[in-house]
Amino acid sequence: MKIKNSFAELERRFAEIKDLQAGLSILGWDQEVVMPPGGAEARANTLAALTTVVHERTTARPLARLVNQLHGEREELKPRQRRALELARRTIKKATSIPAALAAEIARAESRGLEAWREARAKSDFSLFASTLEHMVTLKREVARLNRTKRSAPLYDALLDDYEPGATVEQVDELLGELSTLTTELVRHVARSKQRIDTSPLTQSYPADEQREFAREVVVAMGIDLSRGRLDLSTHPFCGGVGPGDVRMTGRYDPKDLRPGLFGAVHEAGHGLYEQGLDPARARSPLGGAVSMAVHESQSRLWENQVARSRPFWEHWLPVLAKRFPDVAKFSLDEFWRAVNAMRPTLIRVEADELTYNLHIALRYEIERDLIDGTLHVRDLPARWNEGMEQKLGIRPADDATGVLQDIHWAMGAFGYFPTYSLGNLYAAQLMEAAREALPELDAQVARGELLPLREWLFAEIHRHDQLYDAPKLIKRVTGKAPSVEPFRRYITAKVESVFGTVTVGGA
Amino acid sequence: MKIKNSFAELERRFAEIKDLQAGLSILGWDQEVVMPPGGAEARANTLAALTTVVHERTTARPLARLVNQLHGEREELKPRQRRALELARRTIKKATSIPAALAAEIARAESRGLEAWREARAKSDFSLFASTLEHMVTLKREVARLNRTKRSAPLYDALLDDYEPGATVEQVDELLGELSTLTTELVRHVARSKQRIDTSPLTQSYPADEQREFAREVVVAMGIDLSRGRLDLSTHPFCGGVGPGDVRMTGRYDPKDLRPGLFGAVHEAGHGLYEQGLDPARARSPLGGAVSMAVHESQSRLWENQVARSRPFWEHWLPVLAKRFPDVAKFSLDEFWRAVNAMRPTLIRVEADELTYNLHIALRYEIERDLIDGTLHVRDLPARWNEGMEQKLGIRPADDATGVLQDIHWAMGAFGYFPTYSLGNLYAAQLMEAAREALPELDAQVARGELLPLREWLFAEIHRHDQLYDAPKLIKRVTGKAPSVEPFRRYITAKVESVFGTVTVGGA
Repeated sequence: MKIKNSFAELERRFAEIKDLQAGLSILGWDQEVVMPPGGAEARANTLAALTTVVHERTTARPLARLVNQLHGEREELKPRQRRALELARRTIKKATSIPAALAAEIARAESRGLEAWREARAKSDFSLFASTLEHMVTLKREVARLNRTKRSAPLYDALLDDYEPGATVEQVDELLGELSTLTTELVRHVARSKQRIDTSPLTQSYPADEQREFAREVVVAMGIDLSRGRLDLSTHPFCGGVGPGDVRMTGRYDPKDLRPGLFGAVHEAGHGLYEQGLDPARARSPLGGAVSMAVHESQSRLWENQVARSRPFWEHWLPVLAKRFPDVAKFSLDEFWRAVNAMRPTLIRVEADELTYNLHIALRYEIERDLIDGTLHVRDLPARWNEGMEQKLGIRPADDATGVLQDIHWAMGAFGYFPTYSLGNLYAAQLMEAAREALPELDAQVARGELLPLREWLFAEIHRHDQLYDAPKLIKRVTGKAPSVEPFRRYITAKVESVFGTVTVGGA
Repeated sequence: MKIKNSFAELERRFAEIKDLQAGLSILGWDQEVVMPPGGAEARANTLAALTTVVHERTTARPLARLVNQLHGEREELKPRQRRALELARRTIKKATSIPAALAAEIARAESRGLEAWREARAKSDFSLFASTLEHMVTLKREVARLNRTKRSAPLYDALLDDYEPGATVEQVDELLGELSTLTTELVRHVARSKQRIDTSPLTQSYPADEQREFAREVVVAMGIDLSRGRLDLSTHPFCGGVGPGDVRMTGRYDPKDLRPGLFGAVHEAGHGLYEQGLDPARARSPLGGAVSMAVHESQSRLWENQVARSRPFWEHWLPVLAKRFPDVAKFSLDEFWRAVNAMRPTLIRVEADELTYNLHIALRYEIERDLIDGTLHVRDLPARWNEGMEQKLGIRPADDATGVLQDIHWAMGAFGYFPTYSLGNLYAAQLMEAAREALPELDAQVARGELLPLREWLFAEIHRHDQLYDAPKLIKRVTGKAPSVEPFRRYITAKVESVFGTVTVGGA
């Protein structure tokens, strides 16, 4: 076959795989957001059947032959085609290295894991979850063994690669290690500071429906196009769907607390803007889609923290909020801005502030790295968790539900996912510095409620490129520098100082 | 392979096909009910890809071999296994007779047909739809040619069989012919009668949200289990989902008219009860699912007309309605009951009363039968439609939108579907006579708001059997007689007489 025809055939086959994956995505959204309880069993069967089809299509011999042939002739391809080929090979290789029986076993273990985790969490008893988790760790170690590229590399690298292509334990240890040191210093500073933040501006009466309307107004101002997306309710907020034409963001609203609803909505809209900004023409090609979980998270964190916890943001939005919730009018901009920037060690990751959040991630990363490495046993997990919380945050959960059982990730077998949250924070800070350079009027724009210039910049620099570049290349391309902790250090230090007073590192 | 293993393998393969079809069903529901407009293109691709997979799985050679082997040894199977095998063979044969390229062409023609139809209807201009419809008719004639079992049989038989297995033009001509004669006589009687029905009780102020609550109350009283189903809004009400654990009914509510919302909800709940009443243990087997469209329609029509337009029904529900809509209190039970039984020729099928409805179907049936037969050309459709309306109902549409373009069926290529609506009306009457015999207290129960005894009877006699019996066998089994017009003649004549006075057939 001529190379042109071969490449077209590769694209055709990938388009079909992506079309089927889009079906999985909508079925998953439906399961979380609208499915009645009675649909659970049929849905599990449907997801398993469709997952099997996708696996079959991805590991089909003609596709493997095609990719090998094209790889041999890759010098004749255009650069974008070469990148598409590289991404396609990666996907195929990963799928092929896992025998169908193991893939099916993992799918079953995920369902069982979620079930056991839900029950264990409801009863706050880790022992009810231990044996299914143990099984999951065994399976994931096997996956890592089959997927790793070098025998000498840590097993965890192969899992991390599923969420953050190319990332390694070595890099993550370095970045997250530095980030931990920095965070610990700043947490100490906050603890020592005399500042007492009053968060009562956020815990007035905030009727849920009115909060939803306000959140909708904010995300539309961010540039979310609701003819290409939806906002719904779900217990666990997420952003799903089939970008860029059908992006589905969910949220939950607490009538006594503005934070989970509003910051959750802005966070998911950050993900949503990324998805809506992807190139529709590439949606079905191997190039289509987000670069990595950390880059995705950089978008949500950038909007949630760098924008929506900034003073300029509230200059515009506090009066708008006060129109809907008259009680809010009694608080000054400064009081409100300080309230949304309260920082103190807490037990629950998803409720953590932007400073202590990274310590929650550090703990999870170290634990899962060691579980996969084999140096930590599942039975020792609760003790390790509680000690880690004590050590890193100075607090100890009273029970498993608010401790080791709080997150869904391990139950789903998503080992390697957690570090991308902190990497996303680092990328967000690095990208925001570049945005500020490119948009000198940014703060003034945000203060006037003009969020679209930032959205356009993100679109042009990040979103529209799909997977043309991997994460480190993309960050380098946009910011001129390799990913590092420095921009986040500057950002978070300034934020902490502006709220809690000047930091003297090492001070008593 | 041993016959036991072969049969288990057949069940395994069918379970997978049904799991994938369940995915199609949910994706279709999503498309109608929640998908943002921007998702249309991706969804069309996903549905096409998944439809292709289902077709592939259904026509897979190993499955065909398995079925042939089992067919050869069928005497060794238990009766239920033989029936399952028969149903499986039928499905496989139908799928296999259509080349993949033709199936794909039809899928594309459906998408194009819907698009062209929507535009043509919006502009009320049939000429914008004619060429895509012509192409669809050509494709469907080809399907019929490939699918027909006897060369001498009318092509239309093969299409009818997709919706009403085993039904033929010969039978339908006879039943619907008789029904038309009966209906025409009664329509004349109504026209001659001095009775003037006041429908204003139904066109008071009926705020939509409150109507939805009332409809929910009614369908829950009918036995709809909302932990295994949903009620949503959509422009075109329908009942979809993945029965029996996940049944999705939709409706639309007109704040100025109680009818579309309430009777629509009861109608879809009739379908929904059937789906929820199917045996979960058989859901993934070839035996699982509804018998035919006419049997399905018999369930919705029975609840909508025989129950919800009866006087006992309103004895209970009128006071409940009046609590939500105080204006209603000024109407007597008799006034209200007469209003819901108003009968007069109108242009739109879905708004027609239970008498004239069957003339709408007769017109559509004759037209599509002749289109497929080749004796009617697409270009002559509007003229034929308007003449037919004049002839059958004595009224003529002023434009295509309220005439030949009003229904979605032909745009979707659903030729053979329309007659099942009238067959459903006949089955409903025949089943209701049997129900009355089995439940002598039925009217008194309904008058007390007790709808569950009827639901239980339908469950035991119809729902729980899935496809163990075909439609004529099922009707015979439940009612002791072959399907006929007689029960409906008795029912509708009595209804017309009770509203419009004694009928003297042939009187002046």
